[in-house]
Amino acid sequence: MPLDQLVQNLESALSKVPLIDPHSHIDPLKPVSKSLDDILGYHYYTELAHSAGMPQTLLAPEADPRDRVREIVKFMDRYDNTAQYAWFIDIAHTFLGLPESETRVSASDADKLFDAAQKTFAQPDWEKQVFEKTRLEKIFLTNEFDDPLTGFDTAKYVPCLRTDTLVFHFDKPETRRRLEATTGTHVHDAASLRRALAKVFLRFTQNGAKACAISLPPTFHPAPFDDEHFYEQMQFHDYHDLASGIFWLIAELCRDFRLPFDLMIGVNRKVYPKGVYQGQDLFDQRTSLIQYRDLFNAFPEVTFPVSVLTSAQNQELMAYSWIFPNVLPNGHWWYSNTPPFIRKDLTERVTAVPKTKLIGYYSDAYKLEFVKPKYGMYRRILAGVLADEFVRPGVLSETDAVALGTRLLRDNVREVFKV
Amino acid sequence: MPLDQLVQNLESALSKVPLIDPHSHIDPLKPVSKSLDDILGYHYYTELAHSAGMPQTLLAPEADPRDRVREIVKFMDRYDNTAQYAWFIDIAHTFLGLPESETRVSASDADKLFDAAQKTFAQPDWEKQVFEKTRLEKIFLTNEFDDPLTGFDTAKYVPCLRTDTLVFHFDKPETRRRLEATTGTHVHDAASLRRALAKVFLRFTQNGAKACAISLPPTFHPAPFDDEHFYEQMQFHDYHDLASGIFWLIAELCRDFRLPFDLMIGVNRKVYPKGVYQGQDLFDQRTSLIQYRDLFNAFPEVTFPVSVLTSAQNQELMAYSWIFPNVLPNGHWWYSNTPPFIRKDLTERVTAVPKTKLIGYYSDAYKLEFVKPKYGMYRRILAGVLADEFVRPGVLSETDAVALGTRLLRDNVREVFKV
Amino acid sequence: MPLDQLVQNLESALSKVPLIDPHSHIDPLKPVSKSLDDILGYHYYTELAHSAGMPQTLLAPEADPRDRVREIVKFMDRYDNTAQYAWFIDIAHTFLGLPESETRVSASDADKLFDAAQKTFAQPDWEKQVFEKTRLEKIFLTNEFDDPLTGFDTAKYVPCLRTDTLVFHFDKPETRRRLEATTGTHVHDAASLRRALAKVFLRFTQNGAKACAISLPPTFHPAPFDDEHFYEQMQFHDYHDLASGIFWLIAELCRDFRLPFDLMIGVNRKVYPKGVYQGQDLFDQRTSLIQYRDLFNAFPEVTFPVSVLTSAQNQELMAYSWIFPNVLPNGHWWYSNTPPFIRKDLTERVTAVPKTKLIGYYSDAYKLEFVKPKYGMYRRILAGVLADEFVRPGVLSETDAVALGTRLLRDNVREVFKV
Repeated sequence: MPLDQLVQNLESALSKVPLIDPHSHIDPLKPVSKSLDDILGYHYYTELAHSAGMPQTLLAPEADPRDRVREIVKFMDRYDNTAQYAWFIDIAHTFLGLPESETRVSASDADKLFDAAQKTFAQPDWEKQVFEKTRLEKIFLTNEFDDPLTGFDTAKYVPCLRTDTLVFHFDKPETRRRLEATTGTHVHDAASLRRALAKVFLRFTQNGAKACAISLPPTFHPAPFDDEHFYEQMQFHDYHDLASGIFWLIAELCRDFRLPFDLMIGVNRKVYPKGVYQGQDLFDQRTSLIQYRDLFNAFPEVTFPVSVLTSAQNQELMAYSWIFPNVLPNGHWWYSNTPPFIRKDLTERVTAVPKTKLIGYYSDAYKLEFVKPKYGMYRRILAGVLADEFVRPGVLSETDAVALGTRLLRDNVREVFKV
Repeated sequence: MPLDQLVQNLESALSKVPLIDPHSHIDPLKPVSKSLDDILGYHYYTELAHSAGMPQTLLAPEADPRDRVREIVKFMDRYDNTAQYAWFIDIAHTFLGLPESETRVSASDADKLFDAAQKTFAQPDWEKQVFEKTRLEKIFLTNEFDDPLTGFDTAKYVPCLRTDTLVFHFDKPETRRRLEATTGTHVHDAASLRRALAKVFLRFTQNGAKACAISLPPTFHPAPFDDEHFYEQMQFHDYHDLASGIFWLIAELCRDFRLPFDLMIGVNRKVYPKGVYQGQDLFDQRTSLIQYRDLFNAFPEVTFPVSVLTSAQNQELMAYSWIFPNVLPNGHWWYSNTPPFIRKDLTERVTAVPKTKLIGYYSDAYKLEFVKPKYGMYRRILAGVLADEFVRPGVLSETDAVALGTRLLRDNVREVFKV
Repeated sequence: MPLDQLVQNLESALSKVPLIDPHSHIDPLKPVSKSLDDILGYHYYTELAHSAGMPQTLLAPEADPRDRVREIVKFMDRYDNTAQYAWFIDIAHTFLGLPESETRVSASDADKLFDAAQKTFAQPDWEKQVFEKTRLEKIFLTNEFDDPLTGFDTAKYVPCLRTDTLVFHFDKPETRRRLEATTGTHVHDAASLRRALAKVFLRFTQNGAKACAISLPPTFHPAPFDDEHFYEQMQFHDYHDLASGIFWLIAELCRDFRLPFDLMIGVNRKVYPKGVYQGQDLFDQRTSLIQYRDLFNAFPEVTFPVSVLTSAQNQELMAYSWIFPNVLPNGHWWYSNTPPFIRKDLTERVTAVPKTKLIGYYSDAYKLEFVKPKYGMYRRILAGVLADEFVRPGVLSETDAVALGTRLLRDNVREVFKV
């Protein structure tokens, strides 16, 4: 039963657009998978297998990777309805030689796929092949403030300063030690903190960084602290409540260094502390962008690409982006990164927010092999939305719809992040 | 204008699956309707008629049933757009001899239908006929903790321990009196309370109970109380604030007796106190599953089939079910039990939560005649979602889609509740 | 690629229904546009252009109108994906002679359109032409409590008493001065306040007013104040916290004068204080109708047509309307007035709330030229929803679906507001 021809045409045209992926967790020194364990060790698979009943025994680092893969694949017949399973099938088709005619993977395929992966991923030009098969041009990284930014091509792997540790773990002596180590600045008051952070920004921008980013809990409320407040807190070695103030300083530096500041709003960490690695975080739907009102007003020069964790909050994101020139909707994040939520949120945005402000998608990938299936899912939905909202009602021609889609996929990333 | 052939095929295949309905309010001693008044006295009809302007005069118990039916039918031309009206038409077609060609009922049909019902429902094998026409195999009950569990076939009518009274009305002397009467235990501290509750669980499980259940207000936050706290409160005859602690004890017993614990979250009782019977409850959309974080973590051995009242909270339910092995999405409840919400919530769940965890639907019915139209509505939507998300995009064959649907309709109920 | 024939048939039939628009901001003495600046000065265009990067320089009142129009049109290629842009194209087609074959407007069209508007709008019968092309019969106004209600035909321009100023700005001496001026009553306690407000209601109802209305912030909680409380507050010249109490008095007068009370719930004023005129307000999605529980219970005789700002709250509105006889869902407001939200919210309402209670739409327009494109958007969506939910599944014939649509568009407005 073939899909609609119009949607197919649009999807096919959009699949030719070279990708600039504005958010990932790729390690530029180990960007591609070495084994199927790197693919299936991705938290989405360990989460779903565990949620469906898999014990965590084989997730231990010392377990045999082949055994782990077998276990995760064995449980697939319990979660083969999910979008994440569909990504894996796409990977198996594209990269592991699974014939297109085979649309499912079962326990008995584990070894064959493991071996195929082993062989395929060992090719010396594998990274290059993945870039080509994905039509990937550039991909943004997620760098700790003291990450080395050398030893890789920053034109392909674009550094991005992730600031969660600085903002939310500044009370840990280790964070302050690392900051002093990387900047040579001992932080004891607002001025020295500002100086240290500025050195971080300087190093990042000199090394091609194109964005600053942070993920934020539902209750977070940014607010400026005066220097005296910083001083007093630090004198008494009370670093706990500085998060809002440090966040504000970082926003100031985004302004001064002209970096967009990606906000990823809504995650509660460690809600299920015994969950699998990276599979412990959930959310409280009761969050509002109203908490960012002062921030958006105080920094008209800073572009804030905003991701929200819940689809119910998408209307706020749509409305704040429609009103504030410096607020932009950014991709479809985590628990909103499945087809029904993407379809809904994208439709709401693309009919109400200026098209030049819509950053369509990012992969959030840990390994390059995931960029293709994730963008593939997005493009299929984008094609459907363009067909339903613009082409079929006679608002846009097919050509113009592809141009609108290209804007979401690529043009806006280039313009917003200046890449 | 016929519906899509694919959707029709899927719906037709799904309609052959024998049903195990995991939540209802059926009285096993009076499971079927005796008159049309039993059908139209269902709170959905009295609510809608009242909401549309019907005075409550004829809803008084002493009013003539035929007059009451006339009145409710008379107002149907004000609410014949609703899903609930469509259930009634289905009942009239299936059980009351309304020709399929007649798709509406108006005031002038009231007497004819009343008489048809009178005759039809009087048949000695009516209960058996309804089971057969519905392809119903088993149906879960909602039992008060001191309900007798005898005099009916618990293989067909599966007992379920409803605990609202124990948790939320323990401050009423009558509740404590009833608990003592049914268990022979005088409750004066945590130990005796635990003992009394254990006796309730023992009696229920010995009589074939397969679930424990409770409905919870939006603000509820479960928390363990230590025994001393129970003791002190009870010494001072202060039973008001024990709800969270009693709830926790019940969760412990669900663990010990291996019963799934159905949570139905979000209802505010008596928001419209002058509303019709059972038509007084509404909600506050501002609720979050984060309130259940400690509970889900503390009881990994307890399965929690969770129903939420608002569709906006469905994303939380989807995400918590994706992460916590012991959290399962359960049906489409009350104000979310109409086609647009079912379609949305089902689509969100079926593309993200392991399929083995999806309890598709329950009827919530008070009389057996409602199981068929409600499941009929659900199956039509399920068929549409399977077509759109799986068959048309080439992810599943029709046969595999029917298998997935069957899993939601039946297999998971059997596995989760061990029936 | 033509739209579905069924949807086209329904839309065509619905487009013949004469409109009674139950909420607008039309000035009855200047109901139509004088220039294209009146059209494009509408806050939706200034907001979107500003959001997409347009500086506010030319929005100053002293700027040349033609320059302003050029500027707003120049930025259209950044927001030509929006529903608001589609309204403008509709206006250009219907009123400004843009050929139907041209579906886009670009910078180079600004002068041509400006001139066409100048000429067209100068026609002496322009107002009459707009009424005819729109099939508009009546339109409700938004009147300040001391607005003159003379000099226009109140059968066409229906007065509506807007009470935001009385409720939320009573602490301003200017408001109290204006109230005294228009009523001749010096307000110094509850009795005099009640008297003054009653005089306002009397004048409005004597001049054909058919509704009272107010917009409310997300946190608002109506509550009755006793007369002593009013007296004490006023004695100490503390008028700040009287909002809830004044609101309650107004509800009492709606009851006494038999006026429906339109509630427009959810707007936070001046979230972006440097935004364009009327483009500064946003919201906090965390609002609940539970705050109106006491109000809805206390005034069973008052009809409350309710608009909510967020689509996430639509389920509450649906449910409260299903339960409370005096609560009615009213139109699609502001940030929910784009196709995806209308489609979702309408579908949720029309399958669950008695059809006689559904007030389908209002234009919220500032100039009459906007009534047509806004209702046009609504009718297209309404036709699609009627097709998908009623005609295709065989629930209603085309004729009956048109009747249901007509009820939403017109009949209910007539019955609810008695016009």
